[in-house]
Amino acid sequence: MTDRSTSHAGRRPPALGRNGNSELLYGMHTVEAALRNPKRRILRLLATGNAARRLGPLPAAAGIEAEIVAPRDLDRLADPGAVHQGVLVEARPLEDPRLDQIERRATVVLLDQVTDPHNVGAIMRSAAGFAAAAVVTTARHSPQASAVLAKAASGAVEWVPFVKVTNLARAIDELKGYGFTIVGLDSEAALPIEQAQARQPVALVLGAEGKGLRRLTRESCDCLVRLDLPGPIKSLNVSNAAALALYALRDRA
Amino acid sequence: MTDRSTSHAGRRPPALGRNGNSELLYGMHTVEAALRNPKRRILRLLATGNAARRLGPLPAAAGIEAEIVAPRDLDRLADPGAVHQGVLVEARPLEDPRLDQIERRATVVLLDQVTDPHNVGAIMRSAAGFAAAAVVTTARHSPQASAVLAKAASGAVEWVPFVKVTNLARAIDELKGYGFTIVGLDSEAALPIEQAQARQPVALVLGAEGKGLRRLTRESCDCLVRLDLPGPIKSLNVSNAAALALYALRDRA
Repeated sequence: MTDRSTSHAGRRPPALGRNGNSELLYGMHTVEAALRNPKRRILRLLATGNAARRLGPLPAAAGIEAEIVAPRDLDRLADPGAVHQGVLVEARPLEDPRLDQIERRATVVLLDQVTDPHNVGAIMRSAAGFAAAAVVTTARHSPQASAVLAKAASGAVEWVPFVKVTNLARAIDELKGYGFTIVGLDSEAALPIEQAQARQPVALVLGAEGKGLRRLTRESCDCLVRLDLPGPIKSLNVSNAAALALYALRDRA
Repeated sequence: MTDRSTSHAGRRPPALGRNGNSELLYGMHTVEAALRNPKRRILRLLATGNAARRLGPLPAAAGIEAEIVAPRDLDRLADPGAVHQGVLVEARPLEDPRLDQIERRATVVLLDQVTDPHNVGAIMRSAAGFAAAAVVTTARHSPQASAVLAKAASGAVEWVPFVKVTNLARAIDELKGYGFTIVGLDSEAALPIEQAQARQPVALVLGAEGKGLRRLTRESCDCLVRLDLPGPIKSLNVSNAAALALYALRDRA
């Protein structure tokens, strides 16, 4: 609680706006990545004394000064249970990328009704790890869920275009037009992913756990593949499945 | 709310014991797997009418009758935010397996201070998918966290021995004695995992995100390997990393 001796001591930091034109990001990696992103406009940076020391010269380089607050102020500003790690920013949302703007040489991940923000965030992170071109979704997340997603993505929201579309089948058609091969992951598929006749660029389609791909989505795919699981459980967490599929398809030049 | 017209209508189901000799399991896959496990002693099964219909003849086959409850009764019994999917059991914990009892031909996953129950549960699930012999941890989980872990494991806690040890370095030595090659995952390692000189049985050691393996753990490994990530983010969610490593090491006969 030594942090309380600094600028906001005894005062409650003013409420942060969540009016649709700003969003909250918290967690050390998430905030560091936002500060490093020249396209990200940071409005405010709140940090405990310890977290500010860990950030070092990053805020200054991004042209912003940290407001030093007590950990409990962040507990109050972030959502209940949020693992803010002593640091939180309010920032302008990044511009929504369009499908026709994404890079056409790397993997694109399409999410068919995958909505859990922890899973979507982890998929964004793996997509950034494997240099994917974009993650495409039809889902809309609340501001609270968006913050959870960004935290789970560990900075990946600054790197990987997150494309929101209204109709996934239409997005698949558009990607076909750009030369993408559409590979759907389906536990019932005849073909193991290692044998997929697919060259990059690949658009990898993942369905929600339990439900899998919707019929229309499945029918839009150029090929359907499965992950071979030799053990007693035949399906993985969707973010784990995404990571495996990105890995298995990584060298399809 | 038609469920309320059945047995517990208007009455609140009695509180479930959490006295250390019973545990709660919820979620459809988790409960189904528990009902199918002959080693699992189920004390009570609470389900909504819909969930009971989905369970079909499983409870009867396991020698237990479902108590039909309203969804809101389960909301009250499970922890806040728990995704119980209309079904919850109180059961005796499975017997804690010992390291000398596990199968010695398949992969063992060791967790060095990985504690988040969502991640540990997802790792259990992938371990079951890849027919791993066991998951070994030093962490103790609260009853609440254990229920979250079991839900994320999607039934895998019934299949994969979950071994709790007090000292990970000693567990590593014991596994070496049983013929395991100890492979540590370390983002700084010189060797990509595909080039690991390791044959099964392999013990795969994973550290907590951010911290990685502790020095003593790292020094106990026979080899250290990294996951090659070509993109701008150089580390994955720990359960995603575990799934990739299990996949990459799966055919090391």
